[in-house]
Amino acid sequence: MKSRKPKVMHEIANRPMIGHVMAALKPLCCDPVVLVVAPGMEAVAEAAHPAQVAIQREQLGTGHAVTAARAALKGVSGDLLVLYGDTPFIATATLEAMLKRRHEADDPAVVVLGFRPEEPGFYGRLVLNTTGGLDAIVEARDATPPQRAITLCNSGVMAFDAERVLPLLKELRNDNAKGEYYLTDLVALARARGWSCAVVEAPVEELMGVNSRADLAVAEQAYQRRARAAAMEGGATLLEPESVYFSHDTALGQDVVVGPHVYFGPGVTIENDVEIKGFCHIEGARIAAGARIGPFARLRPGAAIGPDVHIGNFVEVKNARLGPGAKANHLTYIGDAEIGGGTNIGAGTITVNYDGFSKSRTVVGANASIGSNTSLVAPVTIGARAIVGAGSVITENVPADAMAIARGRQVNLSGRAQSFRAQRGKAKGRAKPAGKAGKKAGTKRKPGKG
Amino acid sequence: MKSRKPKVMHEIANRPMIGHVMAALKPLCCDPVVLVVAPGMEAVAEAAHPAQVAIQREQLGTGHAVTAARAALKGVSGDLLVLYGDTPFIATATLEAMLKRRHEADDPAVVVLGFRPEEPGFYGRLVLNTTGGLDAIVEARDATPPQRAITLCNSGVMAFDAERVLPLLKELRNDNAKGEYYLTDLVALARARGWSCAVVEAPVEELMGVNSRADLAVAEQAYQRRARAAAMEGGATLLEPESVYFSHDTALGQDVVVGPHVYFGPGVTIENDVEIKGFCHIEGARIAAGARIGPFARLRPGAAIGPDVHIGNFVEVKNARLGPGAKANHLTYIGDAEIGGGTNIGAGTITVNYDGFSKSRTVVGANASIGSNTSLVAPVTIGARAIVGAGSVITENVPADAMAIARGRQVNLSGRAQSFRAQRGKAKGRAKPAGKAGKKAGTKRKPGKG
Amino acid sequence: MKSRKPKVMHEIANRPMIGHVMAALKPLCCDPVVLVVAPGMEAVAEAAHPAQVAIQREQLGTGHAVTAARAALKGVSGDLLVLYGDTPFIATATLEAMLKRRHEADDPAVVVLGFRPEEPGFYGRLVLNTTGGLDAIVEARDATPPQRAITLCNSGVMAFDAERVLPLLKELRNDNAKGEYYLTDLVALARARGWSCAVVEAPVEELMGVNSRADLAVAEQAYQRRARAAAMEGGATLLEPESVYFSHDTALGQDVVVGPHVYFGPGVTIENDVEIKGFCHIEGARIAAGARIGPFARLRPGAAIGPDVHIGNFVEVKNARLGPGAKANHLTYIGDAEIGGGTNIGAGTITVNYDGFSKSRTVVGANASIGSNTSLVAPVTIGARAIVGAGSVITENVPADAMAIARGRQVNLSGRAQSFRAQRGKAKGRAKPAGKAGKKAGTKRKPGKG
Repeated sequence: MKSRKPKVMHEIANRPMIGHVMAALKPLCCDPVVLVVAPGMEAVAEAAHPAQVAIQREQLGTGHAVTAARAALKGVSGDLLVLYGDTPFIATATLEAMLKRRHEADDPAVVVLGFRPEEPGFYGRLVLNTTGGLDAIVEARDATPPQRAITLCNSGVMAFDAERVLPLLKELRNDNAKGEYYLTDLVALARARGWSCAVVEAPVEELMGVNSRADLAVAEQAYQRRARAAAMEGGATLLEPESVYFSHDTALGQDVVVGPHVYFGPGVTIENDVEIKGFCHIEGARIAAGARIGPFARLRPGAAIGPDVHIGNFVEVKNARLGPGAKANHLTYIGDAEIGGGTNIGAGTITVNYDGFSKSRTVVGANASIGSNTSLVAPVTIGARAIVGAGSVITENVPADAMAIARGRQVNLSGRAQSFRAQRGKAKGRAKPAGKAGKKAGTKRKPGKG
Repeated sequence: MKSRKPKVMHEIANRPMIGHVMAALKPLCCDPVVLVVAPGMEAVAEAAHPAQVAIQREQLGTGHAVTAARAALKGVSGDLLVLYGDTPFIATATLEAMLKRRHEADDPAVVVLGFRPEEPGFYGRLVLNTTGGLDAIVEARDATPPQRAITLCNSGVMAFDAERVLPLLKELRNDNAKGEYYLTDLVALARARGWSCAVVEAPVEELMGVNSRADLAVAEQAYQRRARAAAMEGGATLLEPESVYFSHDTALGQDVVVGPHVYFGPGVTIENDVEIKGFCHIEGARIAAGARIGPFARLRPGAAIGPDVHIGNFVEVKNARLGPGAKANHLTYIGDAEIGGGTNIGAGTITVNYDGFSKSRTVVGANASIGSNTSLVAPVTIGARAIVGAGSVITENVPADAMAIARGRQVNLSGRAQSFRAQRGKAKGRAKPAGKAGKKAGTKRKPGKG
Repeated sequence: MKSRKPKVMHEIANRPMIGHVMAALKPLCCDPVVLVVAPGMEAVAEAAHPAQVAIQREQLGTGHAVTAARAALKGVSGDLLVLYGDTPFIATATLEAMLKRRHEADDPAVVVLGFRPEEPGFYGRLVLNTTGGLDAIVEARDATPPQRAITLCNSGVMAFDAERVLPLLKELRNDNAKGEYYLTDLVALARARGWSCAVVEAPVEELMGVNSRADLAVAEQAYQRRARAAAMEGGATLLEPESVYFSHDTALGQDVVVGPHVYFGPGVTIENDVEIKGFCHIEGARIAAGARIGPFARLRPGAAIGPDVHIGNFVEVKNARLGPGAKANHLTYIGDAEIGGGTNIGAGTITVNYDGFSKSRTVVGANASIGSNTSLVAPVTIGARAIVGAGSVITENVPADAMAIARGRQVNLSGRAQSFRAQRGKAKGRAKPAGKAGKKAGTKRKPGKG
């Protein structure tokens, strides 16, 4: 991957690959879950919560990896599933099918997950017997021509009977070209004991592996394609589906309309009849029914957008709650705030929530009106129905129904623009250095002070 | 469609599907046009202006639907075209070809529109006779193997001789699996009378039907592909054609350059030599030659951008006219305004056009200069060549050639930042609750008032 | 191309096509390079620096074009390469292979570049002899059926032995359907003299020609596909590769993460571990390691973003340097400025760099804090660790460690919002013309002045 980040921590739909695998496992309630990682990769554990971590000191093959988990598996009986962190799309239903197969009448010791890749090429082939049981896994290079014609291949994913199969791990041998211990060989060991083995087949999409950033992009694209189709199937309109990015947990209601070029980061829930116009960047936000967002809106974590709220262009909302029908339509930053229902936030309004040391909250009551280009210096409270004049810097609370103004008086200096231009023009004409010309102009530019 | 909205009201290129059909019909000047809808769907009529609406009380098939229009068609003679609201891409030329065919020497009573779908599957097959006339429409399930091999299929679109064929409607029977009255059966009724029938073939793209949101997305994509190709063919450069969204009526001049990720909503006209940089959202706007827009610009309805105007990033223009060479390059909202030619609108300028009750206009004369972070509180007029100082709140008119300033004086408090930091740092250090610490800071943060 | 711009000046990845060809040529250090253009196209020369320009007065074929360069080639010996300005993807390695082939033992007088198009159709076929040498170029219309079956076609690109082949130019004849002089015929003339000729084959992608804006879009897409793959191969993560636009010289470090919908204009260099969130528009900028940019950020030429700097949404940076760890997170314009390390620029801050005549610089020291909605009127210097209060218009320098405030005092008018609303409501209720109502409201809206 050309990265300092462990491969399985690379993300698809804003969730690490290992997180996708853990999510597929979760409904099965496996206990324990053991994550085998190389030394130094312990950080992966956080994304794989609640898995225990086992360290594989050397990379000596898949069989060796499972052996590295032996201590953590001590005393475990029942079924053992072996999955891979870089195969993120395995489905819960597939794993369930494997476990179900494990307990069918022939009591297979090993259930192997098979799939049919477009190009079987170097994959191990699954050789079935006449009753559909798994007879052997044959490596591509060892396969006879008829075996090479088999299209059902070994994915590496397996379900074992722990009691019978775990003890076989120590019989694995590494007398092969790479000098590795292959888990695959368990099938031969089980068959040698006369135990039956079985195959469950999964759609090839579930077994897409990721070994490069290009693979990662392909996997991401596959995920997005499915997410877009599911959103539309669920009753959302996507004007340009190809330009909408979903995270793994994006939830859209019915008759939600999504314009072109919209990004849904993690943690977004959108109720019915919301319109998200183009060019929005939304993460960690909840948007209630009937709201209208964007274009060019950014909703950050903790944005709770009430019903019928309008959030317009070049507006950022972070850790703030807006009541029903509130509006912030232009060039605004609302951070660490509570905005009452029906309140109008004028263009260019900024909640000054940070004094360089800590964040403070702004509270605006219902049906208030905040004038344009206003700074609300938190902590500050504006009462219900209050009006704040444009261009004000509000540092003290404003009572309900009051009007607050905090700005300078206007002075018109007759003809002064004309004389300023004449002087500046002359200064430029004399080709003075820009700095000096600028200073001269400066004194003229501040007539309000004279 | 999983929607409360009638299917034919779902939009492609920002026009309801039924609107696309009406647009294809318009040049034919059909009179009357009758729209058959289910009860409760009368709202569709608005998008189908000037069609009359006929209600089909029950959904008993295409023949039944046309019967529902009988009252509205009373006394009509000449040709009758039957179209479908969910087949939005039918072309005027195709309809013209059908009507022309209706009047050829063999005087066909019915002209059926045929097409060749990629998978003929369940479509009715058009069985032609040796002279090219239409002998029969055979449903897929009733077709003999040689008939199934026919690739020319029935689209359902038809042109009739109203006088001969309308009376046949009452002979349609519903003794079929679905118990419906099929318009298709008119062909058999006409042939039984010895009247000739005919086929006109249309490209398959014209007959793309929409039955789900996924279909809608496919249709939208098809439309966009054609619109992008047409724009390039017309002399525009699209840096990333796939990322540009066109509405049904977007008009681009020659040598217009469009960057990546641009959305054209309805009602946009762009003259020659305009550059639209990436990330623009434009609707209801007219942009004159030589203008430069974006990136990150939003032009809303009523934006009239004059020649050589520059609209820069994070700038919104609504219902405003900008004269030749005017500039608004950064973080600005211009709404309900008239900006004179050559005028420069500084970064962060906002026209305060709404006082919570009504909208008022801002007028700025030619060659004026509006300082940054200024609020122009409408109704207000700034004269030609006037200069407004940065950070001003302008509530009164400014005469031509005057300079206006409306802001507070600057006070520098020596060392005060240092002491503020010391105190705030200490407050934080004592781990007081954030609220209290915040308040303490508050009193220190407003030294200009002491 | 339907354009007033010469075809070879149309751009791919923000470089004119002719620039791509010149870049491929550059490592070969050819001297002279002669660019043959039609009259009036001399402007192309600038993009083709350091090529000399030769004018081809009439368009009489490729042979005629090279003849037009004869004067400029006077006295030249050695090898002559003939390339085309509308074949932008030719690779340096291919040209090197051709020159190398020119000097192999059989000393071919002409080396022709062959390729295998998907549809050989109308291309001239390269007829090889048994030893692999080039026997003849046969035009498609003159080819025998076995010759038409040849898939190796003539690209038109050639390398000559100047000394032997240039004199042959005057033997070219135009007795063909189009009445043109074809360079291709040189092969026959050389073979007639018994000189050997040769072929070098290039991948078809290198010979993609551009003859329409649609072709241009296809070429652009091909370029982008390669650029995205190369970026990922080099260790960058692209969340949605298809939505990222690269310029010809974009340089990304390792573990750079790029969100969806990002545009890299010319001149961008990004160091390791930088995160570029979605919807960014970046050109002419250098971004140091660990910085975090966007979403919705615009970096313009001269933006020098230091290590660990944060540039947030709706922020524009132009010709400005930000020191390590500086932050400008919201709705800000930083132009012609120097921002010290660790300094925080509040939301809505604007550097007022233009007074209508010239641009001036803003300098802010390290670890300063600029309040929200502040205007810094350049030329101005804010000292290290200084604090500027929100909503200030700073026109004079602020010393280090000082606090500066420049804004009006807040006045709360009790109950005034209530009475304003009552009056405005009444005015609206009386249905006065909006203008008049607006004015009435105006007098009430400015109570701070009374």
